[in-house]
Amino acid sequence: MKKHNFSAGPCILPQSVFREASQAVLNFNGIDLSILEISHRSKEFIAVMEEAQSLALELLGLQDKGYKALFLQGGASLQFLNVAYNLLENKAAYLNTGTWSSKALKEAKLLGEVVEVASSKDANFNYIPKNYTIPEDADYFHCTSNNTIFGTQMFDFPQTSVPVVADMSSDIFSRKLDFSKFSLIYAGAQKNMGPAGTVLVVIKEDILGKVTRIIPSMLDYKIHLSKESMFNTPPVFAVYVSMLTMRWLKNLGGIEAIEARNREKAGIIYREIDRNPLFKGFAATEDRSIMNATFNLTDEALKPVFDQMAKEAGINGINGHRSVGGYRASMYNAMEPESVQVLADIMKELENKA
Amino acid sequence: MKKHNFSAGPCILPQSVFREASQAVLNFNGIDLSILEISHRSKEFIAVMEEAQSLALELLGLQDKGYKALFLQGGASLQFLNVAYNLLENKAAYLNTGTWSSKALKEAKLLGEVVEVASSKDANFNYIPKNYTIPEDADYFHCTSNNTIFGTQMFDFPQTSVPVVADMSSDIFSRKLDFSKFSLIYAGAQKNMGPAGTVLVVIKEDILGKVTRIIPSMLDYKIHLSKESMFNTPPVFAVYVSMLTMRWLKNLGGIEAIEARNREKAGIIYREIDRNPLFKGFAATEDRSIMNATFNLTDEALKPVFDQMAKEAGINGINGHRSVGGYRASMYNAMEPESVQVLADIMKELENKA
Repeated sequence: MKKHNFSAGPCILPQSVFREASQAVLNFNGIDLSILEISHRSKEFIAVMEEAQSLALELLGLQDKGYKALFLQGGASLQFLNVAYNLLENKAAYLNTGTWSSKALKEAKLLGEVVEVASSKDANFNYIPKNYTIPEDADYFHCTSNNTIFGTQMFDFPQTSVPVVADMSSDIFSRKLDFSKFSLIYAGAQKNMGPAGTVLVVIKEDILGKVTRIIPSMLDYKIHLSKESMFNTPPVFAVYVSMLTMRWLKNLGGIEAIEARNREKAGIIYREIDRNPLFKGFAATEDRSIMNATFNLTDEALKPVFDQMAKEAGINGINGHRSVGGYRASMYNAMEPESVQVLADIMKELENKA
Repeated sequence: MKKHNFSAGPCILPQSVFREASQAVLNFNGIDLSILEISHRSKEFIAVMEEAQSLALELLGLQDKGYKALFLQGGASLQFLNVAYNLLENKAAYLNTGTWSSKALKEAKLLGEVVEVASSKDANFNYIPKNYTIPEDADYFHCTSNNTIFGTQMFDFPQTSVPVVADMSSDIFSRKLDFSKFSLIYAGAQKNMGPAGTVLVVIKEDILGKVTRIIPSMLDYKIHLSKESMFNTPPVFAVYVSMLTMRWLKNLGGIEAIEARNREKAGIIYREIDRNPLFKGFAATEDRSIMNATFNLTDEALKPVFDQMAKEAGINGINGHRSVGGYRASMYNAMEPESVQVLADIMKELENKA
């Protein structure tokens, strides 16, 4: 049965990537060894790592601009700590737009002064705060570009002389931005980039080396950069599948091409949410994410019926996060517009039934 | 061509595990979704994680003895830091038996006083120091049970009232020990347990909660325990393949059964090293690892010939680590005795040729 996988992450990846990855688990590149049993120091894996790092920079338009890409472990959650360890000397500024921002902020506080420049907690994070002021003496400004749980997304980033650090875990490679305005970007792989188990960190090298503390080796970006993501054994398979997914995206036309498709998908679902009296969007209209659409039934009594219809249509993973309730349709890069249409269709069908 | 994969890690895993994992990348358990696209909160993956944790304790004979198993990220290298963060209040005792011990010791020093109780650095770590004294007031004693690079292994562990912490990355699940003598065991997956990308941590819960420092969330064992390895998105595929490998080992008869086979394999290679005048073992005889045999040619001029013979025999990954040189045959759990015999045979053949 064809499944329409709206899981918020780990989530859908291209079918062609699954096929290649499955083959590589049996026999990688025809070398008669599995991708799971080769040394990370083998020439075969070094080529994978180099291509992954290069593709990440290329897709973001950051080649030859003083940036390096790393593939590390521990997800964005460990980066909450690493960012502060490597960059926070006196004061850091954080924009609080949801659960992940809050967690990032909490870890940074262990290492220095943190200013929360604005928060949308007052409205259960259903909007992105605007018109906040970033202290000019902050070491960096941290934000979360897309809030998976609440379905909001930042469309404007502040003009500031302070280095901008962004957690792009749930919208990396999904839309065109001037990425050179960011000094550090990190993203857990398990949305648009690959399977769970690796995190991409893109760093403008000149922001490092400014803190006076001693940094533990595994948290030190300079050490990871000096070893080109091989300070310790990297998560070979997760990096390999991420490389395949980035290759797929490049062949598709890169971020511009996928952004058009992502906007098409978001249009399908938001039009139906706005049209259909049985549903109500959760996020403020102007801040609606093109990755994760959050919405509720106007009549909760219809939930069992709608859930059954979703199940019969092969729809997977649309339950909302417990902090929002209702539904969440995650429409990451690899999802086809047809799948979003299937969801919109059953929403309409519910209206006809009800 | 049949390959004999002696890679030091990531390394050989059972062929049946590769087949199952390959299938799961296409369609996991017949649910029409890839293992790479399912939520870590799905009932399917929760079952995998629970089975993995349970198998780890069962194989070590640590069920119902106050231990918990975690599957985390960052490899043993991050555990070097975590161990100290969670356990080091006043003083820690470290036995230095090689590169990884030295690295563990270095990270611990960032957090408190560290006593190096003994070191075999004087002889390029070719032996395991004995008859050292562990300070009775140490918070814990740390050792590396098997030294992958140097081919040495600890066969006796100290009798001490101090909690014993062991990095068993390269010999976990390979031999019977009284594991209840250890308070904390950690092991990067990529030798006997699974692919690179996850690390097993087995903790006796009562050793936690004794340090006064604030521990960053991702480094805090209590947080990971309270969330059953799901504080953040776990490395789904690496945990899944580890679970498959542990299942394979259990079906094979567990650690006792595999130890017999591992001793058989070690016997084949060490007998040939000792018999053949063209080769010389690196590690002290009484400390020879049953996982990694290190040896050198007595005449380096024979290297091109021997390397060519190895290549033609389908032998992969026997180059020694740069700090030892020569050769290293890693014979982890999944390696068949036949493969070790192929290596011993070409060693003999070289003698006949030379």
